[in-house]
Formats: sequence, structure tokens, C-alpha cells
Amino acid sequence: MDFGFDVISAEEYERQRELYGPLTEALRRLIGAGIHTDVDEDTVRQAQSAIEAATELLERSQRSVTSTLRHEGTGRPLAWANPAIGLRNAIAPPMVIHHEDDGRAWSEFSLSGAYEGPPGWVHGGISALVLDHILGEAASEGLTRPKFTGTITLKYLRGTPLGPLRAEAWIDRVDGAKTFARGTLSDAEGVTVEAEGVFIQPAWARDAG
Amino acid sequence: MDFGFDVISAEEYERQRELYGPLTEALRRLIGAGIHTDVDEDTVRQAQSAIEAATELLERSQRSVTSTLRHEGTGRPLAWANPAIGLRNAIAPPMVIHHEDDGRAWSEFSLSGAYEGPPGWVHGGISALVLDHILGEAASEGLTRPKFTGTITLKYLRGTPLGPLRAEAWIDRVDGAKTFARGTLSDAEGVTVEAEGVFIQPAWARDAG
Repeated sequence: MDFGFDVISAEEYERQRELYGPLTEALRRLIGAGIHTDVDEDTVRQAQSAIEAATELLERSQRSVTSTLRHEGTGRPLAWANPAIGLRNAIAPPMVIHHEDDGRAWSEFSLSGAYEGPPGWVHGGISALVLDHILGEAASEGLTRPKFTGTITLKYLRGTPLGPLRAEAWIDRVDGAKTFARGTLSDAEGVTVEAEGVFIQPAWARDAG
Repeated sequence: MDFGFDVISAEEYERQRELYGPLTEALRRLIGAGIHTDVDEDTVRQAQSAIEAATELLERSQRSVTSTLRHEGTGRPLAWANPAIGLRNAIAPPMVIHHEDDGRAWSEFSLSGAYEGPPGWVHGGISALVLDHILGEAASEGLTRPKFTGTITLKYLRGTPLGPLRAEAWIDRVDGAKTFARGTLSDAEGVTVEAEGVFIQPAWARDAG
């Protein structure tokens, strides 16, 4: 396994963010349009041709998938390909993670119909994706220390509506290689899902501390 | 909440599957191309224009987001918009769920780099999404009975590699409105993640039984 990093400057970070952020936003809107479209077959095929043309353009040069970019200023990996938070991954819920000095991680974001399970409600597995990720962010101090999910338990108190949500997580305690994290997903009325998880530092990373 | 269904014929189902399946596949390939592209800025902007053109075509007519299609032959909802299995949702892992007569649900599928957490490995939250969904499929008898996740616990035995995987789930026991389901995610070497969950039939659906 390769946890190698390429460090990029703050300027290069901004340049890439301004270039790829709108691309991902355009892709998210396209995904939503595709889910609910009811246009005739010819129009679907025209859209598919435009999609294939865009793919052909973007595939002309592809970077290595194994190296991760680390921001020169914060020291944090960018995780731009990540399916939970990646700025460049249109699958990811549109989360930006904030880290407080006390180790707490939080994000406020809005989930569209692309993340819907039962009509009007967020799919339970999407809530699990969001919480697994944000607990992992807290446990690994903003992904600066490699940690893997050991176990995670999610308790769904009530349905989570589509729309504006807040996720947060914090470290409960640390016991050797195990970090115990807790967190919540909330809407404006309060907590909808509670999570607790154990995150484990892999053996190869323990000596490196 | 509206669990209304529009029944569609087997022929109409096939027509839509043949129309929208390739559209979603094209979108998945585009998402992957977007994550790893390294083309120059002009080419990114050209691709973004093609994406916006495709969106404009697909947005010309959008169907209601609240009605769910049910297959005339099987009686099962199609869940085509679903972010875990939807044929029309490019966010969804490419899972097709099979139901055995004994109630077991399973799926064999392959996860691409779009679902990557640590380099080479599936994001733990994506494993949670897959398992929450397939346990829910088993618990709700193929989504024919409304059930919501009450709690779910995931135990990560080792990393889940990108590539070919198998998910399966079954009902462990039923106690009143609570259905206890269990399941696994596996690669060719065996189980990587174990899951157990409690799924709850909402009060409004209990009388309808």
C-alpha cells in the first residue's frame, strides 16, 4: 500500500480547486438530470453522445491514481478523489470538512434527490457513508494519520430528510492503536443518526507514530 | 410520505432498462474520467461545456420524483433512482440484487476507483452503503414491505480491495415490528466486512401488514 504524497503549494491548490470544483458541480447536476429525465429516446441518445464526448476529452490525459496530494500550508491530504468528500468525485455528497482546534470535525451541506432512499428521506446507507467518513476524519486528525474503520455502529433515531444537514464527530478516547470516535447527523430539528466507531492504526504505521 | 407506485409492464421495463442503462454507464465512465483527468484547462472547460449541454437536454422534461415504478411481473419496486442500486443513478455502485426463494439477497459487482478510500481499498463508508442496502433488501423482502434501518453495526475484518466483490444478506429473526438481518461483503479470499442490522416497519404500515 502506498501512502505517498505529492505536496502542492497553496496557489496550485487554489488553481486546481477553481478548475475542478465547477467541473464536479456540473457533473452533479448532470447526474441529477439523468435520474429524473423523461425526454424522448432521441434526446437521451443525444445527451449520451455529449457525455461520451466529454469523457473522451477528459480521458486524453489521466493522472496516476495512487499518489495523494497534500496541501503545503495545512499538511492535510486533499483526498480529492474520495467518494465521501472528494472535490473531484461527483459521487461524493457535497461536504467540506472543518477541523476545530479541539479535534472536532464538522460539515454543513445539503443532500439532493440523488441521495434519496425512501421518498423524501436520505438513504440509510448514505447517512452511514457520511458518518463513517467524518468519524474517520476526527479519529485520524484530518486524515494526517492512517486509520482504518474497525467497527462502526449507527443508530437511526428517525428519518433524515433531504436538504440541509450537519455532520460532526469527535474523539471519545484513545486506547493504544484504537481510537474511539463518536458523531451525529442532524437536521434543523436535532439529531437524526448517532454513530460510534473504533478506528485502528495499521501495524506498519505504529512505529512511525 | 408517499409509497405510491406506478405499475409498468415487462415490455416497458425492458424498454426503459435498454434506454437508461447505457446512459448511466456512460455517466459512470465520465465520473471516473473527471476524477483522474490531467488535461489542460481549456480541455477541462470544453468537457464542462459538453456536460452542460447534456444536462440541458436531459432537463427538458423531468418526471415526478415521488412516484416509484413497480414491475408488473415481479411486483418489486424498481428503485431506479436509489443511490445504492439505482439503474438510473450513476452514484450507485453497479449492483444488481438477486433474491433467492429462501429470502437471501445477494449481488456480485465490481467497484472502480470512484469508490476508493485508502489507495487500492474501498472506502469504509461505501462498504457501509452496500451492506445497509442489501440487509434492507433482505429485511424488506425485496423492498416490497417498507422497512427503515433502526441500527446497523459493521465489523471490518480487513481491507476490502477495489475490483470484484460479493455482498449477501439474510434475515436472522423477526420480533414484532423488528427484523434482524445479517450479511457480509467478500472478495475472492473471503469475508472482509460483517454487518448486522435491525430494520423497523413503520407504525403506519403495521396494520396494512
